[in-house]
Amino acid sequence: MANLQISAPPGVPQLITTVDFDAPRLLVFRAFMEPDLLAQWLGPRRMTMTIDEYDPRDGGRYRYAHHDQEGNQYTFRGVFHGDPSMAGVVQTFEYEGALGHVSLDTLTLEERGGRTHVRTNSVFQSVEDRDAMLESGMETGVREGMERLEELLDKLKRQSSGGTSRAA
Amino acid sequence: MANLQISAPPGVPQLITTVDFDAPRLLVFRAFMEPDLLAQWLGPRRMTMTIDEYDPRDGGRYRYAHHDQEGNQYTFRGVFHGDPSMAGVVQTFEYEGALGHVSLDTLTLEERGGRTHVRTNSVFQSVEDRDAMLESGMETGVREGMERLEELLDKLKRQSSGGTSRAA
Repeated sequence: MANLQISAPPGVPQLITTVDFDAPRLLVFRAFMEPDLLAQWLGPRRMTMTIDEYDPRDGGRYRYAHHDQEGNQYTFRGVFHGDPSMAGVVQTFEYEGALGHVSLDTLTLEERGGRTHVRTNSVFQSVEDRDAMLESGMETGVREGMERLEELLDKLKRQSSGGTSRAA
Repeated sequence: MANLQISAPPGVPQLITTVDFDAPRLLVFRAFMEPDLLAQWLGPRRMTMTIDEYDPRDGGRYRYAHHDQEGNQYTFRGVFHGDPSMAGVVQTFEYEGALGHVSLDTLTLEERGGRTHVRTNSVFQSVEDRDAMLESGMETGVREGMERLEELLDKLKRQSSGGTSRAA
């Protein structure tokens, strides 16, 4: 995984993730916005993902679940704030197992010399909430998710360059 | 104004307000939840308030505006997260003049010896956003709003104790 950094500054209810992908910004944006793509990478490898609702526009909601092989289900939901653009996406995030504990997440995508620099900034209601999120194993999920996203972007790049297309 | 404290810890994208009211928690809760009451106290004294939408339930939206005497209008909106209860209310908050800059606000109401301790905790996407909010004159608005809320609670207490009721 290329230079993923997860930063949890002490005493500040904030979690910042940065990572670079060797892919155009539009492709990365699509991987966050299109449910069919999102479900292929978000979350840890041992989970599958189902999406009940995904409406990325100002005021639109989303709700999805990660499922493990033992039948457990972890459901998350939130609301988009402002219309998502290639520059960024703002949304709330709430685990249905701990309702009332909400984070406010800002995704920023920047083009840097043909690569895309991705930054996620999550602010929590308290440092305790941030730390509880870290202790839930979230870091593994983020790391594996970003690896899976990199693999997906590689696959999409090969497809768009004709690697898997066929003559009719 | 009784012991209002506004705290903006350096380097932390957070703003915390605490204040005590000599009123039962249910009355304070009503003043936050009922649009007719809210419009009587929220914001600075020199502004009037109109409420377009106020739907305090999980996923419900709100949108309101403060108007000054020069005809300027300042519109705010957000989404409730979780069903509001007397213990607390979670909502997002966004000024329509600066869309994309969102805060996540948690209101907590605690009974303390017949009085109500009110705490608001706002987390911002960045310290810069928090500081911009402070520099917008928000502190005056909060201080005057809390004074007006105290006056409203006093009026409601008098009414409920029969001070202004009339025999038919």
